[in-house]
Amino acid sequence: MEAKEFKDFAKAMADYIAEYLENIRDRQVVPSVKPGYLRPLVPEQAPEKPEPWTAVMADIERVVMSGVTHWHSPRFHAYFPTANSYPSIVADMLSGAIACIGFTWIASPACTELEVVMLDWLGQMLGLPEEFLARSGGEGGGVIQGTASEATLVALLGAKARAMQRTKEQHPDWTEVEILSKLVGYCNKQAHSSVERAGLLGGVKLRSLKHDDKRRLRGDTLKEAIDEDIKNGLIPFYVVATLGTTSSCAFDALDEIGDVCKSHDVWLHVDAAYAGSAFICPEYRHLMKGVEKADSFNFNPHKWMLVNFDCSAMWLKQPRWIVDAFNVDPLYLKHDMQGSAPDYRHWQIPLGRRFRSLKLWFVLRLYGVENIQNFIRKHIGLAHLFEKLCLDDERFELFEEVTMGLVCFRLKGDNETNEALLRRINGRGKIHLVPSKVDDVYFLRFAVCSRFTEESDIQSSWEEIKTSADEVLAEK
Amino acid sequence: MEAKEFKDFAKAMADYIAEYLENIRDRQVVPSVKPGYLRPLVPEQAPEKPEPWTAVMADIERVVMSGVTHWHSPRFHAYFPTANSYPSIVADMLSGAIACIGFTWIASPACTELEVVMLDWLGQMLGLPEEFLARSGGEGGGVIQGTASEATLVALLGAKARAMQRTKEQHPDWTEVEILSKLVGYCNKQAHSSVERAGLLGGVKLRSLKHDDKRRLRGDTLKEAIDEDIKNGLIPFYVVATLGTTSSCAFDALDEIGDVCKSHDVWLHVDAAYAGSAFICPEYRHLMKGVEKADSFNFNPHKWMLVNFDCSAMWLKQPRWIVDAFNVDPLYLKHDMQGSAPDYRHWQIPLGRRFRSLKLWFVLRLYGVENIQNFIRKHIGLAHLFEKLCLDDERFELFEEVTMGLVCFRLKGDNETNEALLRRINGRGKIHLVPSKVDDVYFLRFAVCSRFTEESDIQSSWEEIKTSADEVLAEK
Repeated sequence: MEAKEFKDFAKAMADYIAEYLENIRDRQVVPSVKPGYLRPLVPEQAPEKPEPWTAVMADIERVVMSGVTHWHSPRFHAYFPTANSYPSIVADMLSGAIACIGFTWIASPACTELEVVMLDWLGQMLGLPEEFLARSGGEGGGVIQGTASEATLVALLGAKARAMQRTKEQHPDWTEVEILSKLVGYCNKQAHSSVERAGLLGGVKLRSLKHDDKRRLRGDTLKEAIDEDIKNGLIPFYVVATLGTTSSCAFDALDEIGDVCKSHDVWLHVDAAYAGSAFICPEYRHLMKGVEKADSFNFNPHKWMLVNFDCSAMWLKQPRWIVDAFNVDPLYLKHDMQGSAPDYRHWQIPLGRRFRSLKLWFVLRLYGVENIQNFIRKHIGLAHLFEKLCLDDERFELFEEVTMGLVCFRLKGDNETNEALLRRINGRGKIHLVPSKVDDVYFLRFAVCSRFTEESDIQSSWEEIKTSADEVLAEK
Repeated sequence: MEAKEFKDFAKAMADYIAEYLENIRDRQVVPSVKPGYLRPLVPEQAPEKPEPWTAVMADIERVVMSGVTHWHSPRFHAYFPTANSYPSIVADMLSGAIACIGFTWIASPACTELEVVMLDWLGQMLGLPEEFLARSGGEGGGVIQGTASEATLVALLGAKARAMQRTKEQHPDWTEVEILSKLVGYCNKQAHSSVERAGLLGGVKLRSLKHDDKRRLRGDTLKEAIDEDIKNGLIPFYVVATLGTTSSCAFDALDEIGDVCKSHDVWLHVDAAYAGSAFICPEYRHLMKGVEKADSFNFNPHKWMLVNFDCSAMWLKQPRWIVDAFNVDPLYLKHDMQGSAPDYRHWQIPLGRRFRSLKLWFVLRLYGVENIQNFIRKHIGLAHLFEKLCLDDERFELFEEVTMGLVCFRLKGDNETNEALLRRINGRGKIHLVPSKVDDVYFLRFAVCSRFTEESDIQSSWEEIKTSADEVLAEK
C-alpha cells in the first residue's frame, strides 16, 4: 500500500468512524449472531494477491459489525464503561506511525519522558500525594500498565520482593521457599477476580476477607486477620484496597486499612480501576482518604476518562522493589544513560510497550480538565436519574448506595424473579445489562457507559426495564 | 471534540503520517536529547480549558519528534524489527472506534471470532500442524497475546498446571508446595530474558543449558539435564525451544528437543518471536522441523510481518490447561454461550483485550501472502548483501551464520576494539546498532529493520561502519 492509497483509506475510515459513533444509538446493542457465525463469511485462507482497500471497507459491516457488541451505545449498561474518544483515536494513529518499542529510555526518549510527565499531570489532577510524583524529585513516579490486572500483579511482586528481603535480613537462616510459604496477602472478598489471579501467579496465599454491611473491607477485619496470621507464624506482606468494587462499586475503608498496613509494615496497593477517574473532581476525593498511606495506586483512564484501552495508570512510591525484582539485563538492552531516566521495561511484566502516553496528552489537551470533570459529573448525574426512576417504582429496591455511574438494583423479592427479569431485558435486545450476586443476593447492574448517553437514553432504558418487569411479574 | 473536528484532525494526521514515514530516511535516527529534555517543553499541569487540535499538531515536532528514536528508518539496525504498515494503522483506527473489550465471546462475538479465524489463516500460512488450528475441529487453536514474554509465561503456567495434576495423580500424598518445589524447566542459555522472568514469575526453577558451537540447544544436552534432574528427584515439566535467538538468531535443534520432550512427557513451547514470520516462505520451514512435537508455538507478527505492535500469535494444542489454570469466574462475566466458543480471557494474563485481529485481517488482505513473502525474502536478501560487504573486507568476520535478517559481525581481534567500534558508529549518529556478547565474545548486531530499506541504504550503512572502523583502527 502506497502513501497515496493510505491517505485515501485513512480518510475514508475517519468518515466511517464518525458515522458509526454518531449514529451508534440506532444499532442493536448486542448482535443476534450464534457462535461460529463469522467463519462462513470469510474465505478459508488468506488471499495470495493483494485486495483493494475498498474491498476491505465493504466487508466491515457484513463481517465485523454484524457481530459487534456496541460498547459505546447509550443502550449498553454492562460491566463498566470502556473509554473511547476522538482525540484518543487520532493519538493512536500517531503512535502506530512512530511505532517505537519504548522498553528503555534510549529506545525512544520521547516515549519514556512524555509518559513520566503525563503521569505527573494525571497524578496532580487526582490530588495524589507528591511522593507518588516524579516531579517531587524523589524516587516515586508513574507508569502506564496495560490493565489493572497487571498493576495488581506488579504491586504484588514488588511487595513480595520487599518482604523477602526484609525477612531474610531478620532470619538469615530461613530459605527462600520457607519464606515464600509464609507470605500472606489480603483483600476484600469483593475484590476483582484479578487479585485472586495475581496470588495464583505470584505463588502466594491471598485471603479474601469479609466485608461490612456496605460491602467495605474495614480496618478491624484486616487487623484481626493479620494478628491471627502472625500468631500462626505467617508473614503478612500485601493488601489490596478496592475503591469501587466491580460487583457494586463499594469503597473499602482505605484510611483504616492504611493505618493497619503502616503499623504492620505491609505493602498497600489501591485498586481504583473504575472509580479512580472520579477523583479528578474534588468532591469525590473523600472516598480516597488515606491514600497517602498506600505504596502503590492504580486506576484506568481507559475505563472512564476518555482514553482508549489500553491505558492503566499506576503510581509507586518506591519503584525500586519492582525494578530490582524484574532486573534481567542482557547486553543488547543496556545503554549509557541507565539510571538517569526510568527504563520502563523494569516496571512491567512484558518487555515491549507502545507509545501510550500520546493518548493521555491528546485527551487532556483537547478536552481540558474542566470538560473531563464535566463528563464524570454528567455520568454520575445520569446514574442518580436512573436511581430516582427506580426508587419511584415501589416494586424495585437498590442493592447499594449510588456514588458513581453504577446503579445496583433489583425487584423486591427472590433471586429467581430477578434472574427472570434480566433474561427478559437482555432477551428483548434493546439494552444490555449484566448481573452480580453478593452474599447470595442476585441483583442487576446498570452502568452508565457511553459518552453519548443523554437523559432521554436513561429514560428509555428505564422504560425497557419497567416493561420487562411488567411482563415477568404478570407471568408469576 | 465534535465529529467534524475529528474528521479534520484525523485527515491532517493521515497526511502527517504519510509525510513522516515516506521521508523518515532524512531524520537523525537516534535523537541527541539528554534525559529530562521533555519536561521543560510542556506546561507543568494539564490545561483547564480545551486547546484546538491544531495546537497539538503544532507540538508534535517540537515535543515528540525531537526525542523519538526512529525505528522505521532504514538507518535503524538495533534490536529486531518492529512492524509498521499503513493497513495496520487504519485497522487500529477501527479497533479504537469499536473499542470493545473482548474478554468473553458475548462481549463482542466478532472480536473473538475474527481472531479464531485469523489465527487459522496465519497458522496455515506458516504450515503449522492441523492440531494447532481451530478449523481442525479439535481442541487446539490460536490466540493473540500482547508479547512473546506473555506467551512464554502463559505456556509455562499451562505446563505447570498439567504437571501438577499428573504428579498429584501419581503421588496423592504430596502437597502442592512439595510438587512445586520439584518442578524444573529448561531453555538454551541464549533464550530470551523473558524466559528467565517467566520462571521467576511462575515460581519454578528454570535451567539455562549450554549450547553447541552454533549457539543451538541440542537434544543430547537436554536429555542429559533431564536424566540428571530425575535422578535427583526433580520433575522436568517445561522446555522452551528458541527459533532465532535474540543475541545471534541461532535456531535450537527443535526436532531433537521434541523427541526428548515426547519421551519424558514434558511441555514443549516454541519461541519463534522474530524468525517465525519467515516460515510463511516454504524454503525456511526446515528450521522448524519437529514443530509437530510442540505443545505451544509463538511468533510475533508485530516484529517482522507488518502488523503493528501488539500482536503476538500463539497456538496451543490443549488450551484446556491454561483455561483451567486461569478460570476465575465471577457472575458478571458469565454468559449463555459459554463452552461453544472460546472466552479468550482464560487464555491470557490480563482480563481486558483489544480488537487486535482487525490488524491481521487488513494486513493479510491488503498485502496478500505473496507480498508478505516478498517482504521477508527482501530483508533476508539485504542481510546477505551486508554479509557480503562485510566478508569482502578482510578486517571483519562473522560471528554467526546469516539465515534471517540479522548479521552478527565483528572486527577480527579483541572485544575492546569492537566496543570502541560500536561507540564510534553510534557516536557519529548516522545509524544505530546494538551489541551482544556470547561466551565472552563481543560482537555487533546489524538487523535489517525498516520496510523502506533498499540496497543503497545497506551500502551507505556499510560505509558508515567501514569509516568508523578506519578511525578506530587508526587510533590504536
